[in-house]
Amino acid sequence: MELKVYCDRMSQPSRAILIFCKENNAEFEEVTVEIGKGQHRTPEFAEVNPMKQVPAVIHGDFKLFESHAILIYLASTIPGVADHWYVLLLCLHPFSFSEFPFQDQLMYPADVRERAKVHSVLDWHHTNLRRGSVGYLLNTVFAVAFGMPGDPKAAAEGEKLLSASLARIESFWLQGGPFLLGNSKPTIADLALACEVTQLEVADEKDQDRILKPHTKIVKWIEVVKSATAPHFEEIHAAIRSAREPLKKLKAQAGHKSE
Amino acid sequence: MELKVYCDRMSQPSRAILIFCKENNAEFEEVTVEIGKGQHRTPEFAEVNPMKQVPAVIHGDFKLFESHAILIYLASTIPGVADHWYVLLLCLHPFSFSEFPFQDQLMYPADVRERAKVHSVLDWHHTNLRRGSVGYLLNTVFAVAFGMPGDPKAAAEGEKLLSASLARIESFWLQGGPFLLGNSKPTIADLALACEVTQLEVADEKDQDRILKPHTKIVKWIEVVKSATAPHFEEIHAAIRSAREPLKKLKAQAGHKSE
Repeated sequence: MELKVYCDRMSQPSRAILIFCKENNAEFEEVTVEIGKGQHRTPEFAEVNPMKQVPAVIHGDFKLFESHAILIYLASTIPGVADHWYVLLLCLHPFSFSEFPFQDQLMYPADVRERAKVHSVLDWHHTNLRRGSVGYLLNTVFAVAFGMPGDPKAAAEGEKLLSASLARIESFWLQGGPFLLGNSKPTIADLALACEVTQLEVADEKDQDRILKPHTKIVKWIEVVKSATAPHFEEIHAAIRSAREPLKKLKAQAGHKSE
Repeated sequence: MELKVYCDRMSQPSRAILIFCKENNAEFEEVTVEIGKGQHRTPEFAEVNPMKQVPAVIHGDFKLFESHAILIYLASTIPGVADHWYVLLLCLHPFSFSEFPFQDQLMYPADVRERAKVHSVLDWHHTNLRRGSVGYLLNTVFAVAFGMPGDPKAAAEGEKLLSASLARIESFWLQGGPFLLGNSKPTIADLALACEVTQLEVADEKDQDRILKPHTKIVKWIEVVKSATAPHFEEIHAAIRSAREPLKKLKAQAGHKSE
């Protein structure tokens, strides 16, 4: 069944999905939707995702948006995905399954719990790390690049939430293991959150350093995710690295204009 | 296995979980954690949820927070939960399950897709309806009640996102059916989003009317959810209705002080 991934490598959730697909040898077509050119706002793209956001996928005749939902869906449908990505679920509605043969063998509540923890990280991500990161970057780097004023108060609030989230990942989610939830191998949550952190690479080096350097465990975790998904993590992130200089130039021009 | 639900009926995601538990005849203990009294910030509660937020659950020796993750977990573990709440999943990693007997019978990708749509609504909720609702109410009703200034710009942005989200639910998520996703019966997403909308009942009637009245499909949908989960929806919401008058008084007092 044909899988089309509509994405922009400048978008952190787009990158998470692309890395997941490549790492799991999915057969898919990458369809670039350039946010910077407003391609996500066209009527054609609204047919793919009525919310006009990337990433989105079409799998056969099935359309889906929201990156976490997409990661879960792909982990459940791409042939041969390793179990660690989204916890192989052996326990399914054991109680409504009374007529099912081998029912006893299917009851492994430990799996439901491991999967629940992945959901918990992904939900936490929305209102913490992602909200902080987007609030900070939208009102600094991207506001400047797109010729908008940017809200300094919102940028400061974004940075505060971003820093608090990074500290929380270190003190809680990374307890006991190289990956989130203390796991020895990555889940889809590692990809989603790591790609959020690496979005900081669009910022000036001094801003990156100020925000990231205090968090040595985060820096180490990113390296571990990178190496677990090599060479895809680096390859998919090339786009964001090559965007930093043009963004800097735009910022310099904007500064010049406002003088 | 003992299930404890740590919650405050004044919190919309707490209510969604309580209604779900009651509607599905779960055996559970409701442990009230009063946000207004700061009980979620105590060291004792940090043992339950290190993020210091309600709702949270403890099931046997398993601790979980984030309301959507909890709803999914409970839908997967409470005995006898009706399939419509979270889509009975018959297809599980079909391709890594080559050794499993009756493998053919287990492949029902339609179920994976239905479940993916539920995840999509829940993810969308975080950054749209919930963000708008919380932004609006925190900076109006609750700021006043807790003696804080409230940010008029944030309140206006919250109301804008809230109204846009209500319009989007009407034009997209409620297409084709009485429940979200065009379903004929509710999923956990109906509970999560409906409880968010009803949080507006803490606001003044004129503010409620201004925001809700243009959205007749939303008003009808709330009634349908209410009736599908009767009498629990009404019962769990009594707390929020009885809070409106005290909140009004606090607002009047605050207005008096600032004169």
